[in-house]
Amino acid sequence: MELEAFLLSLGTSAFIFLVLMFLFTWLSRRPGNVSIYYPNRILKGMDPWEGSSLTRNSFAWIREALTSSEQDVVKLSGVDTAVYFVFLSTVLGIFALSSLLILPILLPLAATDKSIKNTRNVTDTTSKGTFSQLDNLSMANITRKSSRLWAFLGAVYWISLVTYFMLWKAYKHVSTLRAQALMSADTIPEQFAILVRDIPSPPNGQTHKEFIDSFFRDIYPETFYRSLVVTENRKVNKIWEGLEGYKKKLARAEAIFAATSNRPTNKTGLLGLAGKKVDSIEYYTDLINESVAKLETEQKKVLAEKQETAAIVFFTDRVTAALAAQSLHSQMVDTWTVTEAPEPRQILWENLNIKFFTRLIRQYLIYFIVAITILFYMIPIAFVSAITTLANLQKAIPFIKPVVKITFIRTILESYLPQIALIIFLAMLPKFLMFLSKSEGIPSRSHAVRAASGKYFYFSVLNVFIGVTLAGSLFDNLKALEQKPNSIVTVLATSLPKNATFFLTYVALKFFIGYGLELSRIIPLIIFHLKKKYLYKTEAEVKEAWYPGDLSYATRVPSDMLILTITFCYSVIAPLILVFGVIYFGLGWLILRNQALKVYVPSYESYGRMWPHIHTRILAALFLFQVVMFGYLGVKLFVWATLLVPLIVISLIFGYVCRRKFYLGFQHTALEVACRELKQSPDHEEIFRSFIPHSLSTHKPEDHQFKGAMSRYQDYAAISAA
Amino acid sequence: MELEAFLLSLGTSAFIFLVLMFLFTWLSRRPGNVSIYYPNRILKGMDPWEGSSLTRNSFAWIREALTSSEQDVVKLSGVDTAVYFVFLSTVLGIFALSSLLILPILLPLAATDKSIKNTRNVTDTTSKGTFSQLDNLSMANITRKSSRLWAFLGAVYWISLVTYFMLWKAYKHVSTLRAQALMSADTIPEQFAILVRDIPSPPNGQTHKEFIDSFFRDIYPETFYRSLVVTENRKVNKIWEGLEGYKKKLARAEAIFAATSNRPTNKTGLLGLAGKKVDSIEYYTDLINESVAKLETEQKKVLAEKQETAAIVFFTDRVTAALAAQSLHSQMVDTWTVTEAPEPRQILWENLNIKFFTRLIRQYLIYFIVAITILFYMIPIAFVSAITTLANLQKAIPFIKPVVKITFIRTILESYLPQIALIIFLAMLPKFLMFLSKSEGIPSRSHAVRAASGKYFYFSVLNVFIGVTLAGSLFDNLKALEQKPNSIVTVLATSLPKNATFFLTYVALKFFIGYGLELSRIIPLIIFHLKKKYLYKTEAEVKEAWYPGDLSYATRVPSDMLILTITFCYSVIAPLILVFGVIYFGLGWLILRNQALKVYVPSYESYGRMWPHIHTRILAALFLFQVVMFGYLGVKLFVWATLLVPLIVISLIFGYVCRRKFYLGFQHTALEVACRELKQSPDHEEIFRSFIPHSLSTHKPEDHQFKGAMSRYQDYAAISAA
Repeated sequence: MELEAFLLSLGTSAFIFLVLMFLFTWLSRRPGNVSIYYPNRILKGMDPWEGSSLTRNSFAWIREALTSSEQDVVKLSGVDTAVYFVFLSTVLGIFALSSLLILPILLPLAATDKSIKNTRNVTDTTSKGTFSQLDNLSMANITRKSSRLWAFLGAVYWISLVTYFMLWKAYKHVSTLRAQALMSADTIPEQFAILVRDIPSPPNGQTHKEFIDSFFRDIYPETFYRSLVVTENRKVNKIWEGLEGYKKKLARAEAIFAATSNRPTNKTGLLGLAGKKVDSIEYYTDLINESVAKLETEQKKVLAEKQETAAIVFFTDRVTAALAAQSLHSQMVDTWTVTEAPEPRQILWENLNIKFFTRLIRQYLIYFIVAITILFYMIPIAFVSAITTLANLQKAIPFIKPVVKITFIRTILESYLPQIALIIFLAMLPKFLMFLSKSEGIPSRSHAVRAASGKYFYFSVLNVFIGVTLAGSLFDNLKALEQKPNSIVTVLATSLPKNATFFLTYVALKFFIGYGLELSRIIPLIIFHLKKKYLYKTEAEVKEAWYPGDLSYATRVPSDMLILTITFCYSVIAPLILVFGVIYFGLGWLILRNQALKVYVPSYESYGRMWPHIHTRILAALFLFQVVMFGYLGVKLFVWATLLVPLIVISLIFGYVCRRKFYLGFQHTALEVACRELKQSPDHEEIFRSFIPHSLSTHKPEDHQFKGAMSRYQDYAAISAA
Repeated sequence: MELEAFLLSLGTSAFIFLVLMFLFTWLSRRPGNVSIYYPNRILKGMDPWEGSSLTRNSFAWIREALTSSEQDVVKLSGVDTAVYFVFLSTVLGIFALSSLLILPILLPLAATDKSIKNTRNVTDTTSKGTFSQLDNLSMANITRKSSRLWAFLGAVYWISLVTYFMLWKAYKHVSTLRAQALMSADTIPEQFAILVRDIPSPPNGQTHKEFIDSFFRDIYPETFYRSLVVTENRKVNKIWEGLEGYKKKLARAEAIFAATSNRPTNKTGLLGLAGKKVDSIEYYTDLINESVAKLETEQKKVLAEKQETAAIVFFTDRVTAALAAQSLHSQMVDTWTVTEAPEPRQILWENLNIKFFTRLIRQYLIYFIVAITILFYMIPIAFVSAITTLANLQKAIPFIKPVVKITFIRTILESYLPQIALIIFLAMLPKFLMFLSKSEGIPSRSHAVRAASGKYFYFSVLNVFIGVTLAGSLFDNLKALEQKPNSIVTVLATSLPKNATFFLTYVALKFFIGYGLELSRIIPLIIFHLKKKYLYKTEAEVKEAWYPGDLSYATRVPSDMLILTITFCYSVIAPLILVFGVIYFGLGWLILRNQALKVYVPSYESYGRMWPHIHTRILAALFLFQVVMFGYLGVKLFVWATLLVPLIVISLIFGYVCRRKFYLGFQHTALEVACRELKQSPDHEEIFRSFIPHSLSTHKPEDHQFKGAMSRYQDYAAISAA
């Protein structure tokens, strides 16, 4: 029965995947859709198709993805994307290499054992009740204390060694990738700046700016360029956003006027639905003029009066900036704290004014909130997972029995319901975690993404994987567990085999439907065409409609991590999952390579700082796998399970060594990297300007607007020359 | 009985102390002893007595100690010594402030409770058997569940708050002290240098020196001065030491010749006892000439062929050196690792070549060895402590009963035996711990001293304090403990009151005898006079005989820490100990102030880097005290003992906040400190030369000897000028 449901679900998914593939081939060749399937190429000013679209083979994208080099990815999508592909290919390598030895050895060993048949009716089999034919291929089929368990023990070692090897190689590779990108001969603005926070109150009679300038000029008399004091921009931002909105509306009104020759009108009240009717072009022109005046007044006020305790400090060379970003500036560590400046586009300005110990307190507070949230989510998820097992559903709600008896509905429900429930549950979370991460006081978006991704990882592993696994058992036989108040590891280990089919289906659903939708981009396509047809008029608006955004690592990485954790943990218990893991990461690599080259536009560049984060979590998953296997071999009464203890210790040592050897290189810019020569001497004024927030930048080239908060290099130069 | 023994021991100690004080007053005024009582002043070129010795009051030294300012201490003995006095006065302050509230409240509360009298014959009193009159003044006298325990609970809070306050103040003060010393307008050689280790193999055709120079010249084109490659000096050191020995012997022979007009002779064989008789002056002159030639050959060889993977790199200004010492130089963190250069005199050259991960492995290995040693020492100490309780001694060795019956012997044994046994045991340890710490691969002596001091602290607290306390109980009633397999905290808490008298005696012994000997310097005095009379002839030899050495923090600080821990832990249980603690630290401050100003000569200067180490351990002692009190109030069945849990958490948070706020300022030189201007521009060549090991330095001013391992700044300057 269960095997049937499993195969049906697999078949349906595969069919949907094929349909989506076909749709992609068909749709992506239509010129009207070019901005949906090739936005990254368009924005980079390249020809979307590179050659004739008619002679194109339907599967040309596969060839293109496979032949693209890492340097292509770096060029078109940045180092972060390249690092993400290192992650995919590393995990693919781990699973593929593991499979090579494990599938041909473990599957026959499991299939030929007679344990199940013999103990079919004995109550102590670990998978009573829900047993299916799939289990014949799993470790559940191995007799207790059997010497065949040696092979399974060896498999744990093999997978671990493969993982260490691949991770070490990958870390080295990513480290080089990062170094190469950082030693770029092009001017990277943030390499010339540092972010200074926790600036103490200036002495009497000095402004923040003067205080900051004199502090840094004392330390770096020759290489200090100027500083940009962070200001409280809430009000000016609001005015600026209003202004931008009016400009858009004006452009829209003008576009309508150009197209229809009728002067468009609008109402001035709530949402444009109530109030006086006015001529749009005139109305918005007035509003714009008004806002511009307001903006200028507010800009001056902000620069003069709303200086905060943080600043971006600019230097005339990269080495000094790299040195300064790593060094202690004040004897009191909680003042004048420095870090590398983030890219201008990813600075979270509103966080910069938060003080040192406030940040620490916020951080721990948020860890606490996340822990609470994990616990809180556990309850509904456990309930969903338990209720959605059909057998349990029938027990709980007896009157649905007749419905369930219809085979088709039953099969559909059995195969999809739990997984879909889970996916919906998880979809509600990321925004909340992102909000929490930003509240920690983190200064850059990429860092916030890493923090959110980390939280999401613990979330998904603890709630989905362990939660689903344990909840099923708890619901099944709470009594049985009470009788043996064993350790959590044993309970987890006992419950794992029963859920193998669930997770096999989950992984398959993820790669068939998930990647099918990813490649075909059906949903963005539909939304784009609807918006284009009914809503947007100007070119800017249309561009907004198709602008693809980035790969959104904050959710993508943890979701891959969950698959990784599942595959690791089942790799020896139900080796078949390795095939699914290989497909997931292989297909993922292929499809996302296409998307990275042609679709997504990175919204920031952190030069691979995601990697240590990914590395640690891969190791954490491996660690969980080793602990679970230790527990499960214990459940199988295999005394040599203790041989896994050294392996667990090795994992910890490996993690420690990697951290010591590589991590600092990701946290800071190494000097040997920063000291490379530039192609041309950088334009310091341009670098400085790239950090000025939009709402404060002016279109006039006059400098007087910044005299409040920004140091006047010219003045200083004049003084020192005198 | 026990009170009598206690008072006798106290009286004897006080008497010995007075005798030693008298001896000091008498001896220190005799001109012949001036080099024993005023060596630091002599070496600093000051008048030992500052005025007439005849009009001097016997207690003038006390006035001098009390009126000396912190700046005097810094000037005469360095920042480290000043920091040590901050430690003494902080602890003194903690205990004095605590006493103010605790003695007048807790002592009457304890004395007026009737618990003991009521339960005198009941077996469940916590101090059955060994109970004495002293216990009337301790918490042991409080009835269980009594509401008087509230006062004791409050006392724990009071002591903790006082400690937080004093520690915070002290940390701030020491931080300023360090900053002031580091921003000195004088040239401090190590501020212009960094220590580079883990240098990778140079590319083909380059020497280590060339490789290092080009690496740093790339990064610091303007501020790099030159480098000094560390060499393998074992052989050259040996030759140099031989040479120095011969020089001394020649000087001695010449001194004898000058005094007696007889040409001295010696035998060339084993220890000067066997072999041919030769004329000493000729013989040693020959040997010296021979050695000088050998030294020169070996020096050249060392510089050319024995370059190691470490170097001292010099910069032309302090800020660059401070920046460089804190920054990551290589993308691979385990290569080109940098730290601030230690003072030349405290560099442990033989450790510099040890590689990054080897250092890590050694460190953990040594932690493991120390843990084992602690366990191993526990056994004999526990045995000694148990056996040396007279009652136990009688049980164990029945035939000593008649001896013990003689009151005098019995009393002496009872009061001194255990403490003396303990002191001897602990005296055997420091050298071993110092050896272990140096083996970790630490580059500087001051760091090794801190590491050894840390180990000694854990040692003394775990073995002496906890060991003695627990061992006594275990020996007394192993059975009783087996019946209630309680937590270690409860066991410790139960055992504490019984050992109060032991530790009171221990502290008294430490300050009366310890500080008496310290001040009077009887032993160095005797050794000096013996050596001067019978052994040493030349002035250099005599100076060697009276050279006082430093305060030897590696043993002094942990021994103070042990007293501190004891006083903390008993401060509420037996408040009388606070008086002893105040005397210990007060007397210590006074006597050591005298010794620091007049006697000891610091052998290194680490600018107060000892402080974070001391701070952490004071907090650790406080933490132990809080945990023990939590246990003991629990033993007293006082339910509000749980109110101590927040206090324990506060201690952890306080430690964390202090670490975050201050620690980095002690690990690195803050830039605001390094950027102060110097009185005069430094002589870079002199700075460089101060780092050359004695065995490699040459008396000739020619540079050619260094062309192998040291970079030729002149050459480079010539090239770059060309």
